[in-house]
Amino acid sequence: MESKTLLQQLINSLQCLPGVGKKSAQRMAYQLLDKDRQGALNLSHCLERAMRDIGNCQQCRDYTEVALCSICANSKRDDKLLCIVESPADIAAIEATASYSGKYFVLMGHLSPLDGIGPEEIGLDQLNQLILSTPCEEVIIATSSTVEGETTAHFISSMVQRIENRTITMTRLAQGVPIGGELEYLDSSTLALSLANRKSL
Amino acid sequence: MESKTLLQQLINSLQCLPGVGKKSAQRMAYQLLDKDRQGALNLSHCLERAMRDIGNCQQCRDYTEVALCSICANSKRDDKLLCIVESPADIAAIEATASYSGKYFVLMGHLSPLDGIGPEEIGLDQLNQLILSTPCEEVIIATSSTVEGETTAHFISSMVQRIENRTITMTRLAQGVPIGGELEYLDSSTLALSLANRKSL
Repeated sequence: MESKTLLQQLINSLQCLPGVGKKSAQRMAYQLLDKDRQGALNLSHCLERAMRDIGNCQQCRDYTEVALCSICANSKRDDKLLCIVESPADIAAIEATASYSGKYFVLMGHLSPLDGIGPEEIGLDQLNQLILSTPCEEVIIATSSTVEGETTAHFISSMVQRIENRTITMTRLAQGVPIGGELEYLDSSTLALSLANRKSL
Repeated sequence: MESKTLLQQLINSLQCLPGVGKKSAQRMAYQLLDKDRQGALNLSHCLERAMRDIGNCQQCRDYTEVALCSICANSKRDDKLLCIVESPADIAAIEATASYSGKYFVLMGHLSPLDGIGPEEIGLDQLNQLILSTPCEEVIIATSSTVEGETTAHFISSMVQRIENRTITMTRLAQGVPIGGELEYLDSSTLALSLANRKSL
């Protein structure tokens, strides 16, 4: 590897980025060298600091460089509402809607016994503790609408219902026709579901 | 800016990469944090070293971290042949064909008087010196087939022809139908050119 030039090493290392192959990596390397060395140095420092310092929030397991993430530390957020998601990217997606003011809990995956991912790996003990220690009244299970996501949702739901002396409402994200979606191109399972769950006008 | 989290800073700085917008940057950041922190640290180090150490070859002006690039320093390369290209990426493209064994000279641009890019900016003095100091017999002008590229080619050609006591052949890359190209979809200027320059079988 020592015989490779710095440029070749840079092109190789850029390929660790998702969706970046050899051609794009080459284009990126030349473009940075030509036009944006300052931006590249800045990226280098951000990458190093982020990889070294970003860990998980003690409470919700979201990515953060401090002990408590900004959402958990924010006393204005409603701690009667808890939204359970599979990944930190899901939090970003929900925050972008600006229509949720509760707290979160990140599973960092979903139940997948075949891959050795059980309740402990997705932090269900910690979730249990979190619910016991907060005045949580509603748990919104926002796992993906896949087989694993549904299984995980079901498992969490039965776990939460077993908590004694507490009445906690369990909810799940609504499923149906996406906004702007054309019926013609919608898969039949989603269409059947939205027909079954139709709402009165 | 100090109030931004490290993750937000990372997502912003990833957008200095060409073709990477907010969504891709977010996906990259999460993917690196989730699955490839080692690769990201490696990328960080490569970026820093490359931006700090990569300069231009003293002889051909290609990107290199040493004084003479590997091609200029290679005594097996034919120094009777000199190929003039606009950018280091063009060298990579020609090297990938494995059908050229001569040396290179990189203009790092093309003549563009309106943008203040004249003969000095594209290193024509240095090119002149290079030709005088080497046994160069053929100069292949491989600038782009654009108006600026053609102007630059013409300017270099007349400059080289003014060199005294030397017979230097000037050539230009062949133009015509690309391999796999369908005539139906080829632009008419290229088609007219390949008709005018037809070869006997």
